[in-house]
Amino acid sequence: MNKKKIVILGAGYGGMMVATKLQKKLSPNDAEITLVNKHDYHYQATWLHEVSAGTIHQDRARIRIKDVVNFNKVKFLQDTVLAIDTESKSVKLQNTGRIEYDILVVALGFQPATFGIPGIEEHAFTISTINTSRLLREHIEYNFAMYNNEVEKNPARLNIVVGGGGFTGVEYLGEIVNKVPELCKEYDIDPALVRVFNIDGSPTVLKGFDPQLVEYAMSSLESRGVEFINNAHLIEIKADKVIYEKDGETKEIPTMNAVWAAGVRANVIVEESGLGTNRGKVDVTPEMRAPGHDDIFVIGDCALVMDHKAGFPYPPTAQIAIQESGTIAHNIIALVKGGELEAFKPNILGTVASLGHKDGTGIVLDGRKLFGWKATVMKKIIDNRYLLKLGGIGLLIKKGKFNIFG
Amino acid sequence: MNKKKIVILGAGYGGMMVATKLQKKLSPNDAEITLVNKHDYHYQATWLHEVSAGTIHQDRARIRIKDVVNFNKVKFLQDTVLAIDTESKSVKLQNTGRIEYDILVVALGFQPATFGIPGIEEHAFTISTINTSRLLREHIEYNFAMYNNEVEKNPARLNIVVGGGGFTGVEYLGEIVNKVPELCKEYDIDPALVRVFNIDGSPTVLKGFDPQLVEYAMSSLESRGVEFINNAHLIEIKADKVIYEKDGETKEIPTMNAVWAAGVRANVIVEESGLGTNRGKVDVTPEMRAPGHDDIFVIGDCALVMDHKAGFPYPPTAQIAIQESGTIAHNIIALVKGGELEAFKPNILGTVASLGHKDGTGIVLDGRKLFGWKATVMKKIIDNRYLLKLGGIGLLIKKGKFNIFG
Repeated sequence: MNKKKIVILGAGYGGMMVATKLQKKLSPNDAEITLVNKHDYHYQATWLHEVSAGTIHQDRARIRIKDVVNFNKVKFLQDTVLAIDTESKSVKLQNTGRIEYDILVVALGFQPATFGIPGIEEHAFTISTINTSRLLREHIEYNFAMYNNEVEKNPARLNIVVGGGGFTGVEYLGEIVNKVPELCKEYDIDPALVRVFNIDGSPTVLKGFDPQLVEYAMSSLESRGVEFINNAHLIEIKADKVIYEKDGETKEIPTMNAVWAAGVRANVIVEESGLGTNRGKVDVTPEMRAPGHDDIFVIGDCALVMDHKAGFPYPPTAQIAIQESGTIAHNIIALVKGGELEAFKPNILGTVASLGHKDGTGIVLDGRKLFGWKATVMKKIIDNRYLLKLGGIGLLIKKGKFNIFG
Repeated sequence: MNKKKIVILGAGYGGMMVATKLQKKLSPNDAEITLVNKHDYHYQATWLHEVSAGTIHQDRARIRIKDVVNFNKVKFLQDTVLAIDTESKSVKLQNTGRIEYDILVVALGFQPATFGIPGIEEHAFTISTINTSRLLREHIEYNFAMYNNEVEKNPARLNIVVGGGGFTGVEYLGEIVNKVPELCKEYDIDPALVRVFNIDGSPTVLKGFDPQLVEYAMSSLESRGVEFINNAHLIEIKADKVIYEKDGETKEIPTMNAVWAAGVRANVIVEESGLGTNRGKVDVTPEMRAPGHDDIFVIGDCALVMDHKAGFPYPPTAQIAIQESGTIAHNIIALVKGGELEAFKPNILGTVASLGHKDGTGIVLDGRKLFGWKATVMKKIIDNRYLLKLGGIGLLIKKGKFNIFG
């Protein structure tokens, strides 16, 4: 009866991939595997900008956990993690109470970081979960619907301001500018009245990305109506305006549609549990474990993996989380059945940013740059590869993106 | 050059029918006909409960005016009527300025009546126009989307309270209870958490309707989850609750979804112009003219037509407005070309209330009572007859309701 209790917290990219890998390699006689997640579905966080803009439905971006995880092999608990107690080797859950672990996988993902900027929590919308993305979509629809119900026309209802020009911000801009004409038709609004802004602190969006790709992305978005405000800093978000500073001047844009896409941090539970040491993340060992905790693996947005060549941490992408899952699954099996632990070796295959359904830009393994439809094809291939890995051909067919030349 | 200037204010059932009848019978040499309307579309007000619940799209319930009115014969002005000046025989418009008339048709429709109940204007939603109906639909969707984004779950987001158990209220209830399961699926909400209430001042809904039909309607709606609160009076609507009085006690329901369907009145412009004499309506002459104004015809919700047998005015329905248009068109032609004016003789063919797509109840000309699918078929036949009258077979095919056994 000394079966190992393996507990996986979170069903994002990392948690799901570890669970599906373990269920193939471990039998119920080897270990008791439990997956804990708030919802009964997994979602593809990299598609949430589309859900938020309403260019795809949320059901396209989520997968019922039971469709991928074998509940005969992995026990599923739909519950919310409140705390990790490394002393007693247990996790406190909202409904189930306390569960014990022998091996823990922390895959709790990210949450928005507001950097203390006033008003973000109260008035800005984020692209973080199915719930926040669906709400953002509904919020903009609501303001568009309200516009014609007011005698005094309020431009704040139609202006959309995106704070942050990273991947999420840029990809959302690409979707929302494509959606605006459709929204205008639906709500009887003159498209000329709708303005879409991006505010970012850097001289360009996609900081750190290849300059040629950045220029391509900005030109593409500008040609579809995005107004970039660079080298600017958000001061405050109010219910009906965004206040920012640029060139030493304080300016404002009337808007009730403020989107905060400028920062994420690891789930705060990681820091509260005493595991997070570096900007709330766990600076993991080569085997992807929390330092000093040989029984705790950390994956995805909760883990900090250094790119020693570049001198920076790897950006927290789905790609790296999926790769980490291979190392973590291998190492857990080694702990359970015996064998050598291995070190994580990332293999970044490339990065592609979508700019709406029909445009994108990116860079692939061999350094080749991609623009336009070639980038969108590559993006969809990346998405489809993940589905294939996660749930096999069945899931790929059900949820894949096949309109690749659309 | 003494062509008569005929001005029709409003493109509701009455205004549209007068315009289309006149364009068939009068040539541009006989008269100059102008139709004024706020929007470039006509909408079927009797379908707005469906738009409000989201069971049909707003575009199904509206018709572009240019698709029905021949702009070579009728000049169309998209503008808002501000005032009617009977002294100078002119109408003041928001954008065009002042236009003169020789013959005026007042077809300005209804607006909600709040009876001075506090909070209705600020917090309640009405089923009055395409804009208000679309907003009501969006509002409930927004609250459903918000529900899962709050840590402290707020039942006010999910409770729907309809004030008023007349035709509009009852028909909306029939649609919204059918829509709730779909909304719950869309927003990941347990259907058991959603409650739909109706508050009405009478012992039953559909006051004045045949008791057997009333019982049928209430049973049908109750079986689908509507909770009726009868003999109750609204005291106030706040942002997050409805306060009412019943049996001498003050009670409240937490809700952010308050729908006000308890009262309508004639467009206030009628009263402000000195034409309205009876509860804001014009107590018209037998020829459908404003008393003392031989050049002003009044139609639909702005006109009061007495049912002398019953001792009450006829209820302001689409059916009676459409019938009035025949008399008014005839009388205008008589004024222009010479001939006898005729008196209006209503011919009420029956009344049917829908209770969602698959149920209804009503009474027809010969006194026969209709229940269930037979009533829904009759309702759709009535709707289709109007489309045929308004725009011929082309409009019927485009906008008709043909899923009559669905």
